[in-house]
Amino acid sequence: MDSKTTVTGYAVKAPKGQLEPFTYELPEIGKEQVDIRVAYCGLCYSDVNMINNDWGTTHYPLVPGHEMVGEVIRTGSEAKGVKVGDKVGMGWFSASCMHCPQCMSGQHHFCADAEQTIVGRHGGFADIVRGHWSWAIPLPAGIDLAKAGPLLCGGITVFNPIIAAGVKPTDKVGVIGIGGLGHLAIRFLRHWGCEVTAFSSNKSKHDEIREMGATRVIDSTNADDLQAVKGQLNFILSTVNVPLDWERYLNCLALKGELHTVGVVLEPMSIPAFSLINGEKKVAGSPSASPAVIKTMLDFCVRHQIYPTVEEFPMERVNEAIKHLTEGKARYRVVLKN
Amino acid sequence: MDSKTTVTGYAVKAPKGQLEPFTYELPEIGKEQVDIRVAYCGLCYSDVNMINNDWGTTHYPLVPGHEMVGEVIRTGSEAKGVKVGDKVGMGWFSASCMHCPQCMSGQHHFCADAEQTIVGRHGGFADIVRGHWSWAIPLPAGIDLAKAGPLLCGGITVFNPIIAAGVKPTDKVGVIGIGGLGHLAIRFLRHWGCEVTAFSSNKSKHDEIREMGATRVIDSTNADDLQAVKGQLNFILSTVNVPLDWERYLNCLALKGELHTVGVVLEPMSIPAFSLINGEKKVAGSPSASPAVIKTMLDFCVRHQIYPTVEEFPMERVNEAIKHLTEGKARYRVVLKN
Repeated sequence: MDSKTTVTGYAVKAPKGQLEPFTYELPEIGKEQVDIRVAYCGLCYSDVNMINNDWGTTHYPLVPGHEMVGEVIRTGSEAKGVKVGDKVGMGWFSASCMHCPQCMSGQHHFCADAEQTIVGRHGGFADIVRGHWSWAIPLPAGIDLAKAGPLLCGGITVFNPIIAAGVKPTDKVGVIGIGGLGHLAIRFLRHWGCEVTAFSSNKSKHDEIREMGATRVIDSTNADDLQAVKGQLNFILSTVNVPLDWERYLNCLALKGELHTVGVVLEPMSIPAFSLINGEKKVAGSPSASPAVIKTMLDFCVRHQIYPTVEEFPMERVNEAIKHLTEGKARYRVVLKN
Repeated sequence: MDSKTTVTGYAVKAPKGQLEPFTYELPEIGKEQVDIRVAYCGLCYSDVNMINNDWGTTHYPLVPGHEMVGEVIRTGSEAKGVKVGDKVGMGWFSASCMHCPQCMSGQHHFCADAEQTIVGRHGGFADIVRGHWSWAIPLPAGIDLAKAGPLLCGGITVFNPIIAAGVKPTDKVGVIGIGGLGHLAIRFLRHWGCEVTAFSSNKSKHDEIREMGATRVIDSTNADDLQAVKGQLNFILSTVNVPLDWERYLNCLALKGELHTVGVVLEPMSIPAFSLINGEKKVAGSPSASPAVIKTMLDFCVRHQIYPTVEEFPMERVNEAIKHLTEGKARYRVVLKN
């Protein structure tokens, strides 16, 4: 058996370029690595950011894609927890050192040496993706593979804040921005037991948003409408990456409430100290999460049948899928099928 | 016995005025009220803000003072928990409704009808102060009355964040601004078991600050010096009310760390979302605390002999004391003695 593996996928060769068919060779598999045959891969806005080199971290050519689900087809001799034939998912991270204080305390996503799936290596818009066994997260039985991909990045990005902030089923919560991330947040929070208020500027989505489980939808462009929940929400999750009138949302928080952002808005947030002090409020943020929390999320998803609303494209129509996303037409998450 | 009580103290009659001898009459004591003979009253910068009507909430004439300790000399028929002769302290709040959700959940300081000791009523720069029994906090045996006054406002303001943020003895923490509040924060956190880093722009205080219990003192005006604790502090408490380069302090936080302000800085805080997201960090604030937390603090203070460093003035030299404070000369907290 040849120790090298040929991977066939789609790569971008220059900033903002189209993706083109691309093959590359993986060396002999490492002792702790696994190879996954990609069945589906979600398309996340971070893929677009990487295609465009928005963050200055892109190496070309790049095979994007970091929301893979599929089957383990090969394992190194020391791989643990997964075996050939297992269904697994892999997201933004594909390896971590396993011995630093962060890894040793179950926070592998904070490992300073963590490998990011599409930074300096190739991702999941391909037939095979490789990573460390620890980030090949076993999928629970009964999961819907065709919809599960986006949970691995978009899903965990909005699930982790619920854990981090200690949201309780008795809480009243809000979600700002109902797109790929926000619509999953609504579903998580509804099944968490919470009363969910959605803030959306897009009136054409409001009926759909109620169907997702939101108790009410507030037109976020109308300051008066926000008065309806003044001082009421224990937790507000912002999924948008544009500057907002943050004080307006702080005013919607109940005492001891938390405004949590997962949207990398580039302009600094303007936060009045008095708004924090007066009601013992917090502003927080968070990135992805550890393998253990991802596993917890996946179990919760299967138990409650929580999935993104997906639009499926065959992998060979990846450029069309990207155009659909960047034009703001995705309802609500795009998945590519091999 | 006459049912009215004549109170003798010092009042200001117009914004930024001098305090002058002043008497006023209290009506018959309410069923749930207590009268306290003031032994000592701390001088807090909030008194100066109220004297000057900085917040637009001052009613003149005003007897300032909201850090009283003394003895209960009279109780209404339904007062609970304290009796004549008890030593008690009273701070920013002097009454709350006792039945709203906040009061009923032990958060009396968030009661929407809470009475503030020097807002629309008279405070402790006088021989007697009146309040609801719930805010007349019994003082633990052995407390040093001459130093305890400032604990009732300045002390609880920096003690409560330690509770609210869940600071652990194993944590590394920082304190920004080492004045009346900051020096107490250092002492609390040192006795909490923490490694304490003090940030101070005043080099003349650095030796004293180490004696207070700080492990290290960093010149906060020097960005390079802050590098020494980059990514290390689990909790940073800011006691200053001037705008800072908040990102610089967020960079000093460890993963999941919290930057907590008790200083009412009027210019909105500029907080980069990326600084929060990348390390799951928080920015928070808090006001005073409930009677239960004040009692917990006082017990902790007596157990560890934690007191402010005080400068004592006789009550009749109150104007001199205020001048001393406003000129930035207080080392570190002024107390007025009756």
